[in-house]
Amino acid sequence: MNNIYLDYNATTPIDPRVLEAMMPYLSEHFGNPSSIHSFGRKGKEALDKAREQVSGLLSVSPREVMFTSGGSEGANFAIKGTAAALKEKGTHLITTKVEHECVLETFHYLEKQGFQATYLGVNDDGIIDLDELRDSITDETVLVSCIYANNETGVISPIEEIADIVKEKGVAFHTDAVQAAGKIWVDLEKIPADLVSISAHKFYGPKSVGALIIRDSFSQQVTLAPLIHGGGQERGRRSGTENVAGIVGLGAASAIAQNEMSEDESRLRALRDRMLDNISGSIGGVKLNGSLESMLWNTLNLSIDGVQGDSLAMNLDIEGVAVSTGSACSEGAIDPSHVLSAMGLSKQEAASSVRISLGRFTSDKDIDYVSELFPKIVDRIRGVK
Amino acid sequence: MNNIYLDYNATTPIDPRVLEAMMPYLSEHFGNPSSIHSFGRKGKEALDKAREQVSGLLSVSPREVMFTSGGSEGANFAIKGTAAALKEKGTHLITTKVEHECVLETFHYLEKQGFQATYLGVNDDGIIDLDELRDSITDETVLVSCIYANNETGVISPIEEIADIVKEKGVAFHTDAVQAAGKIWVDLEKIPADLVSISAHKFYGPKSVGALIIRDSFSQQVTLAPLIHGGGQERGRRSGTENVAGIVGLGAASAIAQNEMSEDESRLRALRDRMLDNISGSIGGVKLNGSLESMLWNTLNLSIDGVQGDSLAMNLDIEGVAVSTGSACSEGAIDPSHVLSAMGLSKQEAASSVRISLGRFTSDKDIDYVSELFPKIVDRIRGVK
Repeated sequence: MNNIYLDYNATTPIDPRVLEAMMPYLSEHFGNPSSIHSFGRKGKEALDKAREQVSGLLSVSPREVMFTSGGSEGANFAIKGTAAALKEKGTHLITTKVEHECVLETFHYLEKQGFQATYLGVNDDGIIDLDELRDSITDETVLVSCIYANNETGVISPIEEIADIVKEKGVAFHTDAVQAAGKIWVDLEKIPADLVSISAHKFYGPKSVGALIIRDSFSQQVTLAPLIHGGGQERGRRSGTENVAGIVGLGAASAIAQNEMSEDESRLRALRDRMLDNISGSIGGVKLNGSLESMLWNTLNLSIDGVQGDSLAMNLDIEGVAVSTGSACSEGAIDPSHVLSAMGLSKQEAASSVRISLGRFTSDKDIDYVSELFPKIVDRIRGVK
Repeated sequence: MNNIYLDYNATTPIDPRVLEAMMPYLSEHFGNPSSIHSFGRKGKEALDKAREQVSGLLSVSPREVMFTSGGSEGANFAIKGTAAALKEKGTHLITTKVEHECVLETFHYLEKQGFQATYLGVNDDGIIDLDELRDSITDETVLVSCIYANNETGVISPIEEIADIVKEKGVAFHTDAVQAAGKIWVDLEKIPADLVSISAHKFYGPKSVGALIIRDSFSQQVTLAPLIHGGGQERGRRSGTENVAGIVGLGAASAIAQNEMSEDESRLRALRDRMLDNISGSIGGVKLNGSLESMLWNTLNLSIDGVQGDSLAMNLDIEGVAVSTGSACSEGAIDPSHVLSAMGLSKQEAASSVRISLGRFTSDKDIDYVSELFPKIVDRIRGVK
């Protein structure tokens, strides 16, 4: 039985080196970082080191790194915290139609609380229009949130230009960089984002730990209202005993990503492109959603004529190959992907799509195997129609 | 060098059996529970099993168990969620002066949002007055939150009677059971609490994972506003990819606690009592804060005449013995404990206190050693005054 995992955008295995770094903090170094005794100090030192490692990955200073329980918490805190802090200044918020649910649902919630929201559309390649963004910012706008790289399609937003436009207008800017961080260079020395959320389990760290970057220039002006009040950890921004082992894992994953990102990219981009060529060459009616020029090097989102995406994914699963349809984060969701719909795909086209996402442990052999299997299954499904 | 840990109320080491249960989910079983392929299903099955295990510990049904990132998140969600859901009905909230910061700070936050709060005092033994509780409930009261067992003193509240009073009045009731769950029998078949928050790392599970029990009878009437919006995990109550390994750890820790709680109790209660006798017998001016009759079997909170608690704790730390002063959850806090102050201790008495808390891996030898060392250090400190 095969066991080929091509769903790295949903989650990644923990890199064995990351797990090795975590293990002492799951056993002998178990102290509470708030404790002043030696057990506690070990924990505190571990947090400090991890904060350095995360700051290195994103080119910020360690004090700008706040640990969270993951990407969803980071985005919720950034958006709700900013909205609450600035509501006297204005109540208009802007985002896009292709965000992850953690941003979209937070916006929907805030609309119910009396905020106004603009959802920017995207072109066929999944990119917002920069003039439209500029025009949509009013005197009432207090926050813009834009996804850095899309989880479903891998489309990368022109985030530096977007941030420049938003900051020129003096508006707070958050980017959900969960799919970008650890895969592509997120250089916050260049990108003037105020708030950047990332998640460890998307780049070989453990689940349920992440970071929100809060730039100093922002925190000097805005005090975010905490989601979780209590003991005052994370400089009062996020209470609760710290997830020491998880944070150590996030730190180790960040350090590895920083070192190996370009190596991973060159190897996996070639594999990904070869798979696309093989599949497109073997069967007709294959459409790539998004443009290869502005797409993560690990992702393929394909619409396959005459095939239901979930049927294709299930058939691949039976053969021991894991791919995804739409976002894995919507439990049992069967609506057509909001991302593909926003890119102009019909319901049928959206429903005929699968996402294949590669990662560090994908081998040449895996890709050779799937490149052959995939067209066979498509033919089989088309045949029995 | 010794390495004697007597600060189990701050955090506990992970039980090796718990870690063993977690390991597959930190390695080969890494799937996202929301994914429909075999990797995802493994994760989903693990969540289901853990939910059963937690429900067994607390005598509730599995669907009443919601996983959180820990006790602070659970308490915040329970209190803020209830307050937001019921604010049309009333804006009065009641708690006690001896809560953990995660409850107190949440109340302070809600006061700033326009809610009214009553903070019930306690007697010398750290227990609220039940008549005062009854009298403080008005037509405007929508929630009472009371700590089950106190983190600093180990004092156990008469939680069944408290819950009965609150529910008789038709008011929502939350208890922060973080220090109780896994140590003493929390039988929610008997205690009519609506909302109960617990944390894994207080009973040999990993950090940053916990559960909020939301009773069916409550959720049929009240829909809590999520703290974290997004993919809709945990029945829409808490979005974000689940902490599969952590949740497996919480489940395993719950199952072990259910089996071994009384065994742990009888052994450690005897050790704790012996230590108290030894210390009280060797030096004068030792006062136990709280009454042994209504106190966790693992905790001793002692005020020592003529000694600063932090100086005592630091001297013990130098000798490789970890104890605590006040709550470990307030980073760098130097104010006298609000819990001891509420029990009528003077600033000086409160500042002269240390907390010693035992746990599963405390040995007879540890207690013998500390019983001898402790009075020596007190004498030394008193001598140099």
